[in-house]
Amino acid sequence: MLELYHNNMSVCAQKVRLVLTEKGIAVTEHHLNLRAGDQQEPDYVKLNAKAVVPTLVHDGIVVTESTVIAEYLDEVFPEPPLSPSDAAGRARMRAWAKRPDERIHAACATVSNAIAFRHQWLARSADELERIIQRTPDPERRAWRREILDKGVDSRPFGDAMRAYDKLLADMEKALADAPWLAGEAYTLADVGITPYVNRLAMLSLEHMWSDRPHVGDWYARVRARPNFAAAIEAYDEDSYLTLMAEQGAAQWQAVAAMLDAA
Amino acid sequence: MLELYHNNMSVCAQKVRLVLTEKGIAVTEHHLNLRAGDQQEPDYVKLNAKAVVPTLVHDGIVVTESTVIAEYLDEVFPEPPLSPSDAAGRARMRAWAKRPDERIHAACATVSNAIAFRHQWLARSADELERIIQRTPDPERRAWRREILDKGVDSRPFGDAMRAYDKLLADMEKALADAPWLAGEAYTLADVGITPYVNRLAMLSLEHMWSDRPHVGDWYARVRARPNFAAAIEAYDEDSYLTLMAEQGAAQWQAVAAMLDAA
Repeated sequence: MLELYHNNMSVCAQKVRLVLTEKGIAVTEHHLNLRAGDQQEPDYVKLNAKAVVPTLVHDGIVVTESTVIAEYLDEVFPEPPLSPSDAAGRARMRAWAKRPDERIHAACATVSNAIAFRHQWLARSADELERIIQRTPDPERRAWRREILDKGVDSRPFGDAMRAYDKLLADMEKALADAPWLAGEAYTLADVGITPYVNRLAMLSLEHMWSDRPHVGDWYARVRARPNFAAAIEAYDEDSYLTLMAEQGAAQWQAVAAMLDAA
Repeated sequence: MLELYHNNMSVCAQKVRLVLTEKGIAVTEHHLNLRAGDQQEPDYVKLNAKAVVPTLVHDGIVVTESTVIAEYLDEVFPEPPLSPSDAAGRARMRAWAKRPDERIHAACATVSNAIAFRHQWLARSADELERIIQRTPDPERRAWRREILDKGVDSRPFGDAMRAYDKLLADMEKALADAPWLAGEAYTLADVGITPYVNRLAMLSLEHMWSDRPHVGDWYARVRARPNFAAAIEAYDEDSYLTLMAEQGAAQWQAVAAMLDAA
């Protein structure tokens, strides 16, 4: 039995669903409402100590961390394969797959919140906002949250995040000039791992970031045309979030572009 | 032919050498002097775009990222195996092996610089120090460097890094209560990946961080007793660095302990 604890629009949940749908694996879904704090419920924290989505439970085996879940699924359900057949190809794949874990996942959270979700929070009262900030247990994350809420796209984390994203896109452009997919001739966990993060930029009206990067644009078009994109990502998208991200992203693009040009 | 571009005391180089020595693989070594900027030389940047060590070149195949190199070596030179034979075990292993990439590698750099290496820089003139800060290309890293140089263990990054390390040790204590090694019954790339980071704490006189964590202490003693520890780590240690780290760590331990208690 396969169970997936996830969230409809979480990038890490999207990544795991891309693997599941590509391989045609059926799972029992448990949707967590992250704004309501479902991920902090004691029963869930027993499965996932970091209190994040997704978590896979396969015949009693608990697997956390989307990158690790993706490779686990590819080993246990090998068809169709999502890893190159040679060690050098798998090394290339893993180098891409780990980039979100290093820097891009945090950058994605920063960009999404600074441009869009911040405006949901700012609609609340100052007192309530302060309570939300104060209940963030980790001091580092608390400071990050305060800065994003206060300054949005003018915050230092936002600039750092955009530079990290810009570097990722530059590296993708270079790799995709040599081969159609990130790890080479076949669609692999490298493409799966990066897809949700590039897609998030598009949702935030930031496609301009690859207007001079044709290989990235082609890759993203091909990724979106795959059946697993519709099944794993679009089928779960929420209209109100899409609208918020698209509108706020468009409204702030000029400021963002000026910042990227200056860097 | 196998070539390793590395540095004697870099934690990521230590990780790769632990795999090489465990498997008895001979390599041609190219030592990079990181303080002299060898890693920025154009020929090296062609191999390693991030300009970091280590890089492995195997019959013309270039592999970067220590976590990826470790798994590549384990696939290409399978004896003795450093991965569990089952998918669930490999998932556990990968979850540990990726922790440095997520947070602990940055924490290690912060802790090492804030406690010890900062004092090497502070021995220089203020003008020279400013030039060193200004030549750091990335604004995020430049801000980090300035804060560590200015405030050392009183800086915000230092507190954040120590909390990340404390969480790692707490999670290790829990896992090691159930099994002798991080991923289960056998020594694997999980232990290889974490060893240099816990060893760095010990070098900085921070063993107190596991005085109430007996399983971590036992694990570290067993890790140190393995032949690959002497061959891959101790054989490359430089006395002057060991002395600096031990002395500065001991001198600042009380302040660090007070900070950890307050958290």
